[in-house]
Amino acid sequence: MATIAFIGLGNMGAPMMRNLLKAGHTVLAFDLSEAACTAARDAGATIATGPGAAAGEAEVVVTMLPAGKHVREVYTAPDGIIAKAKPGSLFIDSSTVDVDSARFVAAAAEAAGHAMVDAPVSGGVGGAEAATLTFMVGGSDTAFRRAEPILSAMGKAIVHTGGPGNGQAAKICNNMILGISMLGVSEAFALAEKLGLGSQKLFDVASKSSGQCWSLTSYCPVPGPVPTSPANRDYQPGFAAALMLKDLKLAVEAGQSTGSPLPLGGEAAQMYALFCNAGFGGKDFSGIVNLLRGKP
Amino acid sequence: MATIAFIGLGNMGAPMMRNLLKAGHTVLAFDLSEAACTAARDAGATIATGPGAAAGEAEVVVTMLPAGKHVREVYTAPDGIIAKAKPGSLFIDSSTVDVDSARFVAAAAEAAGHAMVDAPVSGGVGGAEAATLTFMVGGSDTAFRRAEPILSAMGKAIVHTGGPGNGQAAKICNNMILGISMLGVSEAFALAEKLGLGSQKLFDVASKSSGQCWSLTSYCPVPGPVPTSPANRDYQPGFAAALMLKDLKLAVEAGQSTGSPLPLGGEAAQMYALFCNAGFGGKDFSGIVNLLRGKP
Repeated sequence: MATIAFIGLGNMGAPMMRNLLKAGHTVLAFDLSEAACTAARDAGATIATGPGAAAGEAEVVVTMLPAGKHVREVYTAPDGIIAKAKPGSLFIDSSTVDVDSARFVAAAAEAAGHAMVDAPVSGGVGGAEAATLTFMVGGSDTAFRRAEPILSAMGKAIVHTGGPGNGQAAKICNNMILGISMLGVSEAFALAEKLGLGSQKLFDVASKSSGQCWSLTSYCPVPGPVPTSPANRDYQPGFAAALMLKDLKLAVEAGQSTGSPLPLGGEAAQMYALFCNAGFGGKDFSGIVNLLRGKP
Repeated sequence: MATIAFIGLGNMGAPMMRNLLKAGHTVLAFDLSEAACTAARDAGATIATGPGAAAGEAEVVVTMLPAGKHVREVYTAPDGIIAKAKPGSLFIDSSTVDVDSARFVAAAAEAAGHAMVDAPVSGGVGGAEAATLTFMVGGSDTAFRRAEPILSAMGKAIVHTGGPGNGQAAKICNNMILGISMLGVSEAFALAEKLGLGSQKLFDVASKSSGQCWSLTSYCPVPGPVPTSPANRDYQPGFAAALMLKDLKLAVEAGQSTGSPLPLGGEAAQMYALFCNAGFGGKDFSGIVNLLRGKP
């Protein structure tokens, strides 16, 4: 069992941290929110005075932060994690951030003699609570082997997708396919409705044909065909539209950074921006079908 | 066994017609191409002097034509199928055409006392030859029941998707999802390549996650992960890009006709137009990944 610094105790970070405690690890926790720190203390963590202070007393650091700028700052500030960590520490960043930030911070960590993996997750708050998250892990083989037993206390699938930044790359590529296919399925249902073709009929054809996709057969955006999908509970997430927009923006950023044209990925980002700007960022991302139907 | 007029003996029509002969039906065939008629005669069909003449001596008429304008003409011309058919004939149009044309012709047939279904197919030339096509059938219950035994000689899945035009509606909605998801998957592979994330790694993550779709897991557009996909044989179709463009144009037409916004469907049509205009209409539609990679 390790002593682990855990930075970022939000909707995802808090339950992930509690699963590390449950597994028997010692946790030094920190968050800017005092309420989050109090809850972490109640759960059994020791509260540190800051990210650097927590890292200085741990062997492993796990971070779960909102965006790339926070990750850069928390790791590379003069009193940050890299500067204050014990020699040879292991850093696990489970935030979902841009690939460039992930690689920048990993290089800085390595230059200072630490090991680092980017390990963004899928599975949402439910997966964080049940310790059933999927981790997509970028980093060296050595760093991955060190991270794996820590991650296994918080998730059930831990996939090594290559060198630094490749965890983020895998996540944004997957989620871009997801955002695009959800919009494609939603356009098809909205068009079918106008053509007088029932949702169930379209589902019956496409689910057994070349239109089959997770967005259709596991997460159908209209009520009925898949009883467990958020469409059947007024689009309560699930996976909020604001988070899909965040991931699509990261994909667009990666496309611009590498010169990769993303005609549908870019259009999908614009559509989710429209949906979120209309006030539906807290709805499940499959609710975008109602924007297309003119009934948001 | 019925006497069937079969109009349109192209790449799809010819093998479909032969399967009707094999099943024991009598076929009166017609095509504008003399070579196609000669081949049909060799296969055992009687050649008629025109669509109306063929229909006048049959109980059932099957048509397999390139586009809506041909279907309108062949059925509604003064000496066409509707005018010349015996009272109470059954018409089966297996062409892929716009929903408006399908409904226009079905209404004209019904007004003249005939029954009609639109029954577009999926499964390609291979499915036509092997009699394993899927038929998506729009029409009344009575018309569907009459058409089913005829269609079963040419295909193995026969799905009733509602009233007139709904076969076409189901096909274009399914194929629009397919075109969009293929582009989404292709954008993801092209982006992953630029980010240094291997194709197999992305496949391993997305195929078991929310990015799963037929375009990825059955028809992967890059060589390697799915050995049977056209990517492994230099994108020989399969399903030609020109046919995907045709179907996406029909979807866009239906969207305009009904006032349904299709932001991704429209963009996908534009991308396939770019790909076909660049000279790749005869390649498999999954080859569009190479347009995105800058290596068409």
